[in-house]
Amino acid sequence: MSVVTLIGLVAAFCTTIAFLPQVIKSWKTKSAKDLSLGMFLIFSLGVFLWLVYGLLINDLPIIIANAFTLVLSSIILFFKLRHG
Amino acid sequence: MSVVTLIGLVAAFCTTIAFLPQVIKSWKTKSAKDLSLGMFLIFSLGVFLWLVYGLLINDLPIIIANAFTLVLSSIILFFKLRHG
Repeated sequence: MSVVTLIGLVAAFCTTIAFLPQVIKSWKTKSAKDLSLGMFLIFSLGVFLWLVYGLLINDLPIIIANAFTLVLSSIILFFKLRHG
Repeated sequence: MSVVTLIGLVAAFCTTIAFLPQVIKSWKTKSAKDLSLGMFLIFSLGVFLWLVYGLLINDLPIIIANAFTLVLSSIILFFKLRHG
């Protein structure tokens, strides 16, 4: 594997896994006042469209990364709607 | 332009512009208590690596989208560090 591919994979891993600490924080504190509803609505829509795009071009890394991110961003969106 | 490419472009637009409402909200409220520091640290690192990856493979859409997202996520990270 080239260094360039490795950088791309680490990048994809970071931008996917990043949402996990937010899920844990929102779940623990039951508070989401400072989170922007607009951000997580638009972001979740965007990640859903990335997933559709990945399925249409049959690109496994795009499918896996965005399926995982969609689950995490949807959970954060749920916390925002539930706890404000 | 194909419908598939259009879906990809709308997806990229959404996941980039999504951070703008969070920047505006954090700037207005001067409060970032509910935001996860871990999320914005890991996410900003990931977006930086996406930018490096885009520069290395010379892919203009990846470069533009991630340069823009890096600015927005860095501003949110700054608000988190400043206002807690």
